[in-house]
Formats: sequence, structure tokens, C-alpha cells
Amino acid sequence: MRPDFAKRRKKLKNLLEKKGIDAVLTSNHEDIYYYTGYTGLREDRIFMIFPVEGEPKLIVTPLENEAEIKYGNVVFMDEIKDFLEEVKPFKTLGYDEKYISVILFRELEKLSIKLEPVGKILEIPRMIKDSYEISQLKSAIGVTKKVFDKLGSELAGKSEKDMADQVGIEFRKHGVTEAFESIISSGIQSAFVHHKPNEKTIKRGEHVLVDIGCRFGMYCSDITRIFGRLDRRGRKICEDVREIHDMIIDNIRSGVRYEDIEALQKRLFERKGYKVFHNFGHGVGLSVHDPVSNILNVNEVLTVEPGIYIKNVGGFRIEDMVLVKKGKAEVLSESIKVD
Amino acid sequence: MRPDFAKRRKKLKNLLEKKGIDAVLTSNHEDIYYYTGYTGLREDRIFMIFPVEGEPKLIVTPLENEAEIKYGNVVFMDEIKDFLEEVKPFKTLGYDEKYISVILFRELEKLSIKLEPVGKILEIPRMIKDSYEISQLKSAIGVTKKVFDKLGSELAGKSEKDMADQVGIEFRKHGVTEAFESIISSGIQSAFVHHKPNEKTIKRGEHVLVDIGCRFGMYCSDITRIFGRLDRRGRKICEDVREIHDMIIDNIRSGVRYEDIEALQKRLFERKGYKVFHNFGHGVGLSVHDPVSNILNVNEVLTVEPGIYIKNVGGFRIEDMVLVKKGKAEVLSESIKVD
Repeated sequence: MRPDFAKRRKKLKNLLEKKGIDAVLTSNHEDIYYYTGYTGLREDRIFMIFPVEGEPKLIVTPLENEAEIKYGNVVFMDEIKDFLEEVKPFKTLGYDEKYISVILFRELEKLSIKLEPVGKILEIPRMIKDSYEISQLKSAIGVTKKVFDKLGSELAGKSEKDMADQVGIEFRKHGVTEAFESIISSGIQSAFVHHKPNEKTIKRGEHVLVDIGCRFGMYCSDITRIFGRLDRRGRKICEDVREIHDMIIDNIRSGVRYEDIEALQKRLFERKGYKVFHNFGHGVGLSVHDPVSNILNVNEVLTVEPGIYIKNVGGFRIEDMVLVKKGKAEVLSESIKVD
Repeated sequence: MRPDFAKRRKKLKNLLEKKGIDAVLTSNHEDIYYYTGYTGLREDRIFMIFPVEGEPKLIVTPLENEAEIKYGNVVFMDEIKDFLEEVKPFKTLGYDEKYISVILFRELEKLSIKLEPVGKILEIPRMIKDSYEISQLKSAIGVTKKVFDKLGSELAGKSEKDMADQVGIEFRKHGVTEAFESIISSGIQSAFVHHKPNEKTIKRGEHVLVDIGCRFGMYCSDITRIFGRLDRRGRKICEDVREIHDMIIDNIRSGVRYEDIEALQKRLFERKGYKVFHNFGHGVGLSVHDPVSNILNVNEVLTVEPGIYIKNVGGFRIEDMVLVKKGKAEVLSESIKVD
């Protein structure tokens, strides 16, 4: 099964034509892969021009001398002026305002072409996942389950960083890499939403929040579970999180507004006397934080991750990945269980 | 041993005052760490304002609720307008043109303040490494040596990707992460300078180019070695690369111009009938590609990495990290040997 890249470009072309844009320039690896199938080293600076008429052109440095074989329609740039030559012919150039650097943007401004930010347009076709993408996402979740299963219940004595290293090793054993820096936070440190794992040793009786994900091929997983023993208060908070999590999922289906689910989360939290720290969830796909529609469509994939954080007590978050359907959403990560 | 962050900020302040800049805005994690010691999760969007007068201010989203404890002088931003409030008081704002997004830049342009790109000024203090940094870089090289030692001489039958996974696992076993996506290229695929490891199996009699590095604490290593058996032609090319590599290192000392070493590499390559594909080397430190001075100073750390690439034959690169001294440069990675 190979994605239909031409079909994806067709969708993009239709969106661009409506806006009167002649070509789009991006350096976002995920969009370049999505529309053409080209992948390079993650750190390399690569650019793609998508003209409304004709084939996309890849622009790389001479270090990417494999690109001609892997892709074909390639221009090698030595300096920024080689690059500018390529965009000059267009009257209205769309650019990806999230990924193009200010250095390049200021050079583009000097050309006599009209510039339009189109980051949000590039995202639209990516929102609804095709069958290839759903299968890749399921594979990413499958590997993540194996890693969760390996973490075991005996965590006392390890440091958060030891666990993060273990997660990294287990993912690599399955031939995949971490999609993001793991959040592993124990005891009261788990009250910090984006805690960076540190040398703190996990004590007996402490709970551990584990928020991890991998990149399988090009597709990401993003799952959170709570490990370890909970005291009575912790158990109560976890039950509340679980209840809110389940009620959010019960309300996800095609045709529902994202902001209505956000409002639902807020009501559920406040009814129980908790403060909302973050959104209920986000899209997930080629990037860990993928775009999501205002009104959900069948075959969008989202995380649902309500979290309760109480200073000097701890943080409790449960995160699953769900597939939007006409009826009840399918919880793709349902089989990931922690004792 | 803890770096003297205040001393680093003093250097930056002097540079900014000379240019008439009141404050600098950056979202580069490495600069933020370098000048303050603050580290967050790698993927998080964080900002720092360095005013010429007063303490640097960290700007984060509410998800970074640990920042107050880890750093102190923190502003939480919900929306871009909260952020703009913080920079408004300055007459002339320096911004990091490599790291600030175009979205933010266009908002800054709407304010009645003067904007100056200062990415290159932020880099200047980072060029010369202090004793803490040199010790961290040596530790990063030490771990990289252990990983090279583990790769073994029997590579036939493994795929390039298997080897990349093995490198990732070995680094994590030592509590460090890869500083960049490993380049592991075998046989004729090694002629592609920035080859992404793939499923190709390494055959008996093929050589393998291994370009890897780790991040130890915050500091990076970047080393390349050639593994495997070479035929007569391969041996000859490797001898040529080695000779050029050694002659470049012989010419590195404080007071020498970077571009003169570049010109030397070009002469050495052309004399032997080879084409130059890339620079002789780059700075290395908090980032894999760290800034380097036009005229080298004592205690700059550079890579030296001449590479010869011949289509349908292969690529041969040797990369070491060297410490600039008054006399002959010290090859920090000298002990990394491959049979």
C-alpha cells in the first residue's frame, strides 16, 4: 500500500486556486513528505515549491546529492540567490509562515512578488487520514503498547531519566524512534505538565506519569498512562480524570465542533472543582501535534488527554488516540493497559 | 563545576550596547541555556528576552508551570498579545532571525519599535569554549568512543537501519541521546553525503561510513569513521582522505583564518584530482553545527571532516573534533579507532 501522493496534491491545488495562489513554498519535512513521498535526514534544510501548474520541485543543498535519485525534480542551491531565482517566476507565492525562516522571508519580501501565508491551507488535506495513514498510526500505537508493557510495575529505585532511557531503548529495539522527548514525572513533580525527566529517584508509593510516543515510518503515537501505587486522594483524582476522559470520547463524532468538546471539558472539570490546564486533545499524524478541523470529520485522528494537576500533590493525565467516526469514536489505543 | 552564566551575559551585554540594542528576543533553546542555564523539553516553544539592563525574562506557555521553580523570572503567555506586551517597552529590539517564526516577526513589525537581526551577535560568546564546555565535549566524545567500539567489525548481514538502531540503543545505555540522525551508508550508497540509513543489507566486502554523535548533558559530539573491508581503490581513496585530514589539522591553530583552511582543503583535493563537496569542518558545542570565528581563537572546538565521494564507487569521510590552541590543535577524538 502506497499513499496516493498525486491525489493529495490535487486537493492542495484546488485549495490554492481558490485563493489565487500560483505556487507554495515550504520547508516543513512533514508537508514535503505528505505531498511527494520525499524524506531526507531530519536535520537537513530542504525546500519544496508546489506550483499550481506542473510538478513540485525540491530544493536542497549539494549535500543532498541522493535527492536526484530519490526524487528527480531537484534543484541544488549553493546560495540564497539560487533559491530566489526559483520563486521569482510566480506572481503570488504562498509560503509556510511556521517553517520558513525570517532570514528567507526578508529576502522574499525584496522580490516583486505577492506573498501570502498559507501554512493553514497546507494543513487542510492532512486533517482527514486515508487508510494508509490509519494503518501506520495503528502500527505506531502497537509498538507503543509493547513499550508500555515492558516498563513493568516495579519502578521504585529507578530515576525518571533511567525510565526515559529505557523507553528510548525499547522503541529502538522495535526499529522506531521517539516522536518527542518523553515526559516521565513522578510524585509531586508530575504536577508540572511538561516536566523534563530528571535524576529524581522514584520512591515506593509514588505514582509515575508516562507520556510517550514513537514515530513508526513517518507516523506518530502519543499516549499517557499512570503507573504505580496511588493513595486515596490519588485514586479519587484518577477516577475523576478517567470519567472526564470517557465522557469526552463519548462526545466525539463527525459533525461535532472541536470548540464544543473544549467547552465540555471545561464544564466537566469545573463541576468537579478542578482547573483546566490545557486543551482536551490535538490531532496526531505526521506530526505529534497535527492539525484538526473545526468541525470533526470521519477519519480524523485525535488525542484525548484530560489532565488534573495539583501543586505539591501531583499530576494525573490519561491520553488516548481516537479515530473519528459517524457514531462513537474508536479508541485506537484502548488495549494499552497498566496494572 | 557550574558555568558562569552571568559572565556570559556580561559579554553579550557589551556586544549589544555597542550596537545600540536595548534587548534581545530569542527562542533558540541553546542560546537560552547558554546565557541562563534554563532547559525545558526540546519540543516546547520557549522565549527569552535579554534586556541590556536587568535580568533575562523567560516567556513560556502555561504548560511550562515548572519554569517558575526552575528559573524564577517567568511570564506565562496565553496568546501572542501577552507576548507582545513584554517587548513593547524596548526602543530597539534585537531578534534571532534564525529561530523566531515569521508569524511572530510579522506581529513584531506592527509595533512601533526598531527591529534588528542579532542572531550572529548571540553566537559570538559561544565560539570560544570555557573549561566546563571543553570537559562536557570530552565526555560526549568519550561516550561516542564506547559506541564506536561496540559496533564491531562484523557488519555484513545487518542493514544500515539496524546499525542506526544499534547506535541509538548504545547511546541510551550510556544515558545520552543522539545529537542528530545517524548517517550510516554502505557500499555505493556512501557516495551520498547525507544518506538516510535504509533497509539495504551490508554485504561482505563493502565499506560502511558511520557519522554519529551524541548530546552529553547539553553538548554534542560529531565523529565519522569508515568500517569494513576496502578494495585497492577504496584503500587508496582512504589514504588520500587521511592525508588531507592530517594536513588540515596541522594547519589549525589560533590566528589562522577559517577561509584559509577552506582554501587549503580545496588545493589539497584538487591536487589529487578530487572534487570538494563540503566545508572542511564546522564548530561544535551546544549545537552540532556551532558558530566558528573568522580568525580562529584558542579554545574553539571544530570538526575536521574532509570527504571524497565518487558516484557508483562510494564515499569516504573521516571526521574528528579538534581543540584550537596556540600551537598544534589537539585532536579530542584521536582515541576513536576502527580496525
